[in-house]
Amino acid sequence: MNSKITLVGAGPGDPELITLKGLFALGNAEVVLYDALVSKEVLEYAKKAIKIYVGKRLGKGENSQDKINKLIVRYASKYANVVRLKGGDSFVFGRGYEELQYARSFGFETEVIPGISSALSVPALAGIPVTHRGFSKSFHVITATQKDGKFNDELKDAVNSKGTIVILMGLHLINEISKLYIDSGKGDLPAAIILDGSLPTEEQYLGTIKTLPELFQKSSGKPGIIVIGSVVSLKSDPKTVAYDLAYEGLKNNLAN
Amino acid sequence: MNSKITLVGAGPGDPELITLKGLFALGNAEVVLYDALVSKEVLEYAKKAIKIYVGKRLGKGENSQDKINKLIVRYASKYANVVRLKGGDSFVFGRGYEELQYARSFGFETEVIPGISSALSVPALAGIPVTHRGFSKSFHVITATQKDGKFNDELKDAVNSKGTIVILMGLHLINEISKLYIDSGKGDLPAAIILDGSLPTEEQYLGTIKTLPELFQKSSGKPGIIVIGSVVSLKSDPKTVAYDLAYEGLKNNLAN
Repeated sequence: MNSKITLVGAGPGDPELITLKGLFALGNAEVVLYDALVSKEVLEYAKKAIKIYVGKRLGKGENSQDKINKLIVRYASKYANVVRLKGGDSFVFGRGYEELQYARSFGFETEVIPGISSALSVPALAGIPVTHRGFSKSFHVITATQKDGKFNDELKDAVNSKGTIVILMGLHLINEISKLYIDSGKGDLPAAIILDGSLPTEEQYLGTIKTLPELFQKSSGKPGIIVIGSVVSLKSDPKTVAYDLAYEGLKNNLAN
Repeated sequence: MNSKITLVGAGPGDPELITLKGLFALGNAEVVLYDALVSKEVLEYAKKAIKIYVGKRLGKGENSQDKINKLIVRYASKYANVVRLKGGDSFVFGRGYEELQYARSFGFETEVIPGISSALSVPALAGIPVTHRGFSKSFHVITATQKDGKFNDELKDAVNSKGTIVILMGLHLINEISKLYIDSGKGDLPAAIILDGSLPTEEQYLGTIKTLPELFQKSSGKPGIIVIGSVVSLKSDPKTVAYDLAYEGLKNNLAN
């Protein structure tokens, strides 16, 4: 069967943060296989589709990756338009490419529709730009765990980065992450935890590397991200002194 | 006047890669101030708006950042709904936060609507996932130039990164970037240049760090990104041997 499998990134949660292209793909879908982090509202865009939950939350082995791969292929052999819907962007730790490779090995046509990644958008919506002149000239997005379930050793290198660090799937390792920075003498670096980003239930916790574990204790423990770097201070103090001084002149000019 | 300034990310170029929320904001806008990298089709979503070009291409001083900041504030003092429309995502080297800060210092309400960043989506659409198990556990997005116009020294650290590197606004420094890696003994690392990503005019050039300058010579010289890391090899050889072996068993199981 000449089926097509479209990998759609649903965005961070807010149903209006899906792309037009993603919306159209959902509208045409006969089957949608969706993850735990996809909101109900986004699923509703797939009016005529059979909706299959294939979520797998960290530590809960609901659906193995092998099982998901097989399910996608099984549905594609029965239906012409299959959408694989993932939270955020499918290629950012989403294992989307693995699913595409698997589907392609059966000869199915595949398409990728990028989504708004939570790594960038959740800080942005919370008032933290991942880059900002004078603060950060790069950003580094890392998952805390790696293939074998161990601590991702790239985090050790990230500690020395001058840019913004965004850690996904890292809240369960928040003590280890905090310690890593403290041991490098960077305990006072501004840091934030944002849970349920972009949703009405969003929780924001601002502090420093040192206070991260304590902040997380106060939270609901929902899925979230960690942002580390001087840009976090822009949120707590949106009109930074440096900036104000630089623009004071211009402001006076404009008023005249 | 109780005006609102909405910062909208237009996405990488394909007009269907704008978010629903961005689309609605454009529909309501009375004024849209847009950049060089915003496509005509995206602008057409702003049916009733006055459209003001405030582009500034690298090396062409068409509009200074100061002038843009002032223009936004001037329009917001006359119109209730002002959209500032930028290519990609406004907080990824877009100087969006500076514009928001400036507008806020005049008391205007501001909102951020994230866009699909070219840093992630352009590789994805070209078949290169920025993360992939066994290939990359992180990605690092860097601009090649910094505030004073000099080479961003974070690139020197990036050379040692195990993750994927995406360089924005770096094509004019492609010789220097290539040299930096070659000097560290990493000349054979897979690398790609993608120009006009997501558009029908897209150009893709695949090679290694060593061949980057040569590849760029062959190109049209349009705006583009550089992707560096083993994930680039997934494009040139989508069904990698390692992957095929791992899934051969599953495939046989499914066939039975």
